[in-house]
Amino acid sequence: MFARLLGLVTLALSLLVAHVPASAAIWDSVPDEQLKALGLTRDSSPKELFDRLSKRYRSELTKGKFAKYWEPIPMDMYLAPTLFYKPPAEPAIEAKREECVACHTGATHGWVKSWEKSVHANLDMIRALPESDSRAYKKAVIAEVEDNLRAQGLLRQGEPLKEVQCIDCHMGVGAKSGNHAKDLRMPDRSVCGSCHVRQFAEAESERDTAVWPQKQWANGHPSHAVDYTANVETATWAALQQREVAASCTMCHTNQTKCDNCHTRHEFSTVESRKPEACATCHNGVDHNEFEQYMYSKHGTVYQTLGAQWDWNIRLADQLGHKNGQTAPTCQSCHFEFKGQYSHNVVRKVRWGFLPSKDIADNIDHPWFKDRKEAWVDTCSQCHSRRFAQEYLTMADKGIQDGSKLVEDTRKVVKKLYDDKLLVGQKNNRPALPAPEQDEAGGFFSLFFAQANQTTTVDRTFAEMWEQHVARYMKGLQHVNPGGWTYSHGWSDLVKDQAIINEQDTLLRERAAMEQRLQRLEGKGSGKTSSYRSGERALYASVIEDPILASGGLALLGGGLLLTGLRGGRRRAAASADADTRTQHDDVPG
Amino acid sequence: MFARLLGLVTLALSLLVAHVPASAAIWDSVPDEQLKALGLTRDSSPKELFDRLSKRYRSELTKGKFAKYWEPIPMDMYLAPTLFYKPPAEPAIEAKREECVACHTGATHGWVKSWEKSVHANLDMIRALPESDSRAYKKAVIAEVEDNLRAQGLLRQGEPLKEVQCIDCHMGVGAKSGNHAKDLRMPDRSVCGSCHVRQFAEAESERDTAVWPQKQWANGHPSHAVDYTANVETATWAALQQREVAASCTMCHTNQTKCDNCHTRHEFSTVESRKPEACATCHNGVDHNEFEQYMYSKHGTVYQTLGAQWDWNIRLADQLGHKNGQTAPTCQSCHFEFKGQYSHNVVRKVRWGFLPSKDIADNIDHPWFKDRKEAWVDTCSQCHSRRFAQEYLTMADKGIQDGSKLVEDTRKVVKKLYDDKLLVGQKNNRPALPAPEQDEAGGFFSLFFAQANQTTTVDRTFAEMWEQHVARYMKGLQHVNPGGWTYSHGWSDLVKDQAIINEQDTLLRERAAMEQRLQRLEGKGSGKTSSYRSGERALYASVIEDPILASGGLALLGGGLLLTGLRGGRRRAAASADADTRTQHDDVPG
Amino acid sequence: MFARLLGLVTLALSLLVAHVPASAAIWDSVPDEQLKALGLTRDSSPKELFDRLSKRYRSELTKGKFAKYWEPIPMDMYLAPTLFYKPPAEPAIEAKREECVACHTGATHGWVKSWEKSVHANLDMIRALPESDSRAYKKAVIAEVEDNLRAQGLLRQGEPLKEVQCIDCHMGVGAKSGNHAKDLRMPDRSVCGSCHVRQFAEAESERDTAVWPQKQWANGHPSHAVDYTANVETATWAALQQREVAASCTMCHTNQTKCDNCHTRHEFSTVESRKPEACATCHNGVDHNEFEQYMYSKHGTVYQTLGAQWDWNIRLADQLGHKNGQTAPTCQSCHFEFKGQYSHNVVRKVRWGFLPSKDIADNIDHPWFKDRKEAWVDTCSQCHSRRFAQEYLTMADKGIQDGSKLVEDTRKVVKKLYDDKLLVGQKNNRPALPAPEQDEAGGFFSLFFAQANQTTTVDRTFAEMWEQHVARYMKGLQHVNPGGWTYSHGWSDLVKDQAIINEQDTLLRERAAMEQRLQRLEGKGSGKTSSYRSGERALYASVIEDPILASGGLALLGGGLLLTGLRGGRRRAAASADADTRTQHDDVPG
Repeated sequence: MFARLLGLVTLALSLLVAHVPASAAIWDSVPDEQLKALGLTRDSSPKELFDRLSKRYRSELTKGKFAKYWEPIPMDMYLAPTLFYKPPAEPAIEAKREECVACHTGATHGWVKSWEKSVHANLDMIRALPESDSRAYKKAVIAEVEDNLRAQGLLRQGEPLKEVQCIDCHMGVGAKSGNHAKDLRMPDRSVCGSCHVRQFAEAESERDTAVWPQKQWANGHPSHAVDYTANVETATWAALQQREVAASCTMCHTNQTKCDNCHTRHEFSTVESRKPEACATCHNGVDHNEFEQYMYSKHGTVYQTLGAQWDWNIRLADQLGHKNGQTAPTCQSCHFEFKGQYSHNVVRKVRWGFLPSKDIADNIDHPWFKDRKEAWVDTCSQCHSRRFAQEYLTMADKGIQDGSKLVEDTRKVVKKLYDDKLLVGQKNNRPALPAPEQDEAGGFFSLFFAQANQTTTVDRTFAEMWEQHVARYMKGLQHVNPGGWTYSHGWSDLVKDQAIINEQDTLLRERAAMEQRLQRLEGKGSGKTSSYRSGERALYASVIEDPILASGGLALLGGGLLLTGLRGGRRRAAASADADTRTQHDDVPG
Repeated sequence: MFARLLGLVTLALSLLVAHVPASAAIWDSVPDEQLKALGLTRDSSPKELFDRLSKRYRSELTKGKFAKYWEPIPMDMYLAPTLFYKPPAEPAIEAKREECVACHTGATHGWVKSWEKSVHANLDMIRALPESDSRAYKKAVIAEVEDNLRAQGLLRQGEPLKEVQCIDCHMGVGAKSGNHAKDLRMPDRSVCGSCHVRQFAEAESERDTAVWPQKQWANGHPSHAVDYTANVETATWAALQQREVAASCTMCHTNQTKCDNCHTRHEFSTVESRKPEACATCHNGVDHNEFEQYMYSKHGTVYQTLGAQWDWNIRLADQLGHKNGQTAPTCQSCHFEFKGQYSHNVVRKVRWGFLPSKDIADNIDHPWFKDRKEAWVDTCSQCHSRRFAQEYLTMADKGIQDGSKLVEDTRKVVKKLYDDKLLVGQKNNRPALPAPEQDEAGGFFSLFFAQANQTTTVDRTFAEMWEQHVARYMKGLQHVNPGGWTYSHGWSDLVKDQAIINEQDTLLRERAAMEQRLQRLEGKGSGKTSSYRSGERALYASVIEDPILASGGLALLGGGLLLTGLRGGRRRAAASADADTRTQHDDVPG
Repeated sequence: MFARLLGLVTLALSLLVAHVPASAAIWDSVPDEQLKALGLTRDSSPKELFDRLSKRYRSELTKGKFAKYWEPIPMDMYLAPTLFYKPPAEPAIEAKREECVACHTGATHGWVKSWEKSVHANLDMIRALPESDSRAYKKAVIAEVEDNLRAQGLLRQGEPLKEVQCIDCHMGVGAKSGNHAKDLRMPDRSVCGSCHVRQFAEAESERDTAVWPQKQWANGHPSHAVDYTANVETATWAALQQREVAASCTMCHTNQTKCDNCHTRHEFSTVESRKPEACATCHNGVDHNEFEQYMYSKHGTVYQTLGAQWDWNIRLADQLGHKNGQTAPTCQSCHFEFKGQYSHNVVRKVRWGFLPSKDIADNIDHPWFKDRKEAWVDTCSQCHSRRFAQEYLTMADKGIQDGSKLVEDTRKVVKKLYDDKLLVGQKNNRPALPAPEQDEAGGFFSLFFAQANQTTTVDRTFAEMWEQHVARYMKGLQHVNPGGWTYSHGWSDLVKDQAIINEQDTLLRERAAMEQRLQRLEGKGSGKTSSYRSGERALYASVIEDPILASGGLALLGGGLLLTGLRGGRRRAAASADADTRTQHDDVPG
């Protein structure tokens, strides 16, 4: 009892700490969880924050647990520069600060032109803006960066930041010159973060706040902050022999490695990063189709019809309250917000993650989930009544649970077919997968491997069901796109999957029974094999050897259940409650 | 002969009546059919029109004929407020007119901001616009609203409308105050219609003008005016146990219940409602993909490339003629137009409705259809030669007939399989559907139900064919999107469906024959059942009991035809000429 | 050795010739290959160029080699006016130059309004633009047109072009009047080309530069310049009985016949033609989905988020260098560029064409391909480092080769099934296709024909694999859309195809074996047919007659290989190295 009271007091204190005024050394938008994880307090300095953050960041950015199974291709040096980047051998020159632009205006003028449009190239222009200009808030951003640099000894006290040139990012902040063949670097999060400490900390705090109460996902997952790790630790990805195919996954899974997925180099336009299309390259398609769902929702159509009238230079945090700002939400205005504060941690309201797994569905009334639902109600009730928001979110939750149930019901059918070894070719034509991938019924690999009968109709259909269709169904509900959750996609896709698998279940069992009957008629029950089959590819020979089927009709009925417990080794259940599994292929916030 | 002459005279007179000048009491854009249906004349007053309209509107807005099969979920109160809305218990305050905005600026500032951008909040700003402003026509709209209010005694003679505040729509026009817990309402069509009588009448006139000559659809169907009724009277919708899934259908089927599907609250921007994206939330996807078809057509690409140069404040009726207006059509510019006049009745040129059913294909040369085709030629010839328009529309009609034939040919194959009971699991693993849904081959339900073998490959494929693919094919032709009618979708989808079903036909009949042969070999012809089957799930046992198959080879060939007439009870043929069927799941104009 | 030196000198000279200064009579952007093909030199006059070009153009524009198999429908007169256009009988008036606009303002005001916005209607406005206006370059375009007209005797020396009216294009340049029922014409490429000689020559030069080193495609293919020919010489297209369906293909395959696919009549806006959506009507969908791939790439999302800030009036060639121009590429900025020069020949960097066929994959290191890859590196390195560009392009090539291998592996499985006559219904229910189409396994026709078992699951799946999915996979890699090449589409689609076909292979062979076993049990080996089958539709009778299967188990294993060489007649291998085949259905640059 006393311990419990103490716990409450501690909680209360920690909540207080979470609301210390902005005058404290570390910004409000950096969550306590992160400070704690880094061994800092709210009074620590931004320099300490940056040092600990960048140290942790670099140490966590590795080839991952499957490192021995894959080698980078040349393109990887641009996708994970921290790990793989090597400067080109030519030109092997010592380049001075002022020479970059001059030379590259000839070589790659597109870069130069984009940079010329950036804030980096226009610090003084920004500083001269009147307060009435919607970009005027950027003056404070520049001042904050200057403070950060001074704290790190990269800018003298009292001296303004004059410019942000190529060399600052690509060799070292404030460097006078560098050797093009030795010193060139491609910026990662920590390079951008040395100036933009607050944004770096916010983005990295996803590691610390995404801690699931029933371990539905590994700590920090799914999030942008660990998306590269999630990618390289996915068995399917590591097992793919065609590395150019695997590279496509990596293309998006690089928010952990750099910042230009959202802030395209070299203009780094905030206008760009505030618009839904900035998210579209990664958040579209067969499962995580948030972009399409949004664009077809009324939220999205208002953006499309009226967005041209809105002033996109207004700071995200001020958009919904500004007379020239948005009148409909964007990806950013909902997902960057948490309890009224906007930050680069976009997973603080995440509840369902990426897939509506059973262990979330079963725990959706746990306080951890309810708190986050309340945070969503706060978000929605900027423009809707609280009751409307609550009822909509409740409806969405129930709907997701319904969809999840369809998947679980079908999983049983699939698993039994697999356990009974009834999948087409399962006994003699289902080659092992390349390591570290392992066989399972309808595993994630079914979407990428198809040698012989490695992936059957049942496998593929179920893989699409649990990994794509139910995710899309969920996203449809969450983004208020009617066609996306029931009709064009979503429910209708799920029941199609179910129908296909149920039909396969009937046909495959009938097929096995027919084979048995034929064998009886052929007198195979006695173990005698008629001569004409001796040369055939033994497509059905295995059936004879199967105790389940060979033991007769009764076994056919009950054998699967009977033998289920006998399977050697634990299999990873696709999309099961095993957080480790899911960590491997998904890490984008839902 | 005399009777016929009299008929012509009557017709001529009625046409005259239809063109009485605008000085008559009821606007030209309100069709005669509606006046007649309401027992009014052109000389009736707008007040009478409103009274009769709103009375009819409310009486027709019900839970429908399947009311006993479903209960609303909380979200339904926002989708059909007339039926289900209840004010929240809190805050239980008496709110004064001027308090709404003040309080909600804190609670839901997004609402307030949207409203502040609306005409409702800027009546005097509109009144002050110079005639050169493209929004100046709105002065007349305000004056018309004032006349309507005065006629209803809601505004004093000579007094201008000062403002349109929250309370006017959410409690009562001109109300001074109201009890938040008792008097709050969510506006339906008739609430908006009390000010906007003309638009209300136009929109509601869809009930009166969509009267099909051969009863291809029920009166008023398909149209926005009856889309809620169409939804709740669809057996599949009513039968769905997962009401959160069914809610997705309802989300779009709410043009009958309110006006904000096109005029998003609370800005109610006409700029928004004039752009194609305003239609996109509902008119996209697996069947009614008008939005995609349009966007990929040259009409749509001109909109996308040049639309930013057009003045979207220009009244829809003036767009194509204005030097700053559109140079390509939008959804609105074609579908709101009828014989040169623009109104909220968007089904006056509808000929194929929603699905290219046989009973339309067979009657496409009937005068009713030809007159409407001529009305389309008028529309197209604003920008194309009449001959071009005629030839295009003729080509489209022929193409649609070709597609319809594919469906009808395939329907025969599907029906015979069903009548022969040859679908997978049909005899013993096809559970009954929840009421009021009933089984049929490839019915609409196949897109939403999949227990056991409720929906087989044949069912699902055919359901997609008649309900989705042929509709999309038709929409491709009608919206001039080449890939949409032959290659990416359309014809190619239809022949794929046909190929699948033809293959299933071969395989399922072969399977039945093989079962028979096995039984003969096993000596089942004698009625003896070998012992080993006694415990099996009897997946094929039914075949033995089937007179069609058991009667031997000759019966296999001819049995289906022979026995077709013996089936008990009439089945609803999916997408047949039965208007009642189609009314149930489609109601959006095509 | 000497010969080699001579070759180098010749190459050097030819390169010099290719870079003669603009003061030469024929523009630099007209390639040598074209001049040579037309028997001209760089010193020829634009008039000679136009004369030879238009003569060749008209002679090549025919109904094609399958002319006898199809008849045009009325709509074809607008799609290939050179071949089929006939003026309407009414109005049969002699129309004067100045009467067109007056009359059509009443009849088809949309035309007039579009024209009023065009440069054609605003020559003097353009002439008056200050040099600072981004449209000022159009003055030189007008002057160039005037020179062309003077050379052709259509404009007097010293006289400016006063206007471009309806009659100039629709009857004759400079015509004073014409008979509406006799003289009216719909402009084809050569009509536009009489004023715009340079653009006409550039566009037509695609015929001359697309000459493949190993004859992977027929000369000039795939390109816009021969897209109509490619269409009408596709057997599937010519064989289609439903000409309204075939018309959909034609709708896009009309760049050869006219110019308004990209420059929509009658505004002919260059702003429109510079935006990606201008390409979207044709380049979207199940295979050539360049538009979607681009829009989801970072290139496309930058266009979508920042494009509204760019000045689209800037000439394409100046966009990337201009301070108000693009900061991301568009379709046009990459594909119209070749070695720093922009022209209407969009296939000078094409390497993979439309499909990643084996004969390209096998020759990708040939100098012809390497030179073009270098040209791409030039293009990309406007905004990326050369190494980045090279590595990306190399990765894309390798990835495409991987995808191509999947197709070739699967092709073998499909071919063997076909050769073994094991496809469902292949022996007795696969009717001949209408001429000139011919049967093959998984041919292009499988996407459009489905009578009986004409197209089986194997056929359709393989047709989608080689003709759609692998193309889309390739386009994903080429347009840097991650989801497009591995996950949402691309690789995942390809392995699904492979999985389906591998499963079919197992099932169809098992089915044939089971049929054999049944027959043995029924005593059919002795040639005796049991009576009960006499009346059945002989779905499996053919199996008995098949030497492969009837010869017993050994034959089942080896028979296919054994008999492959015995098949009578050469079959066209779908998407094989046979350039002739591919010419028939694809002609859009990749």
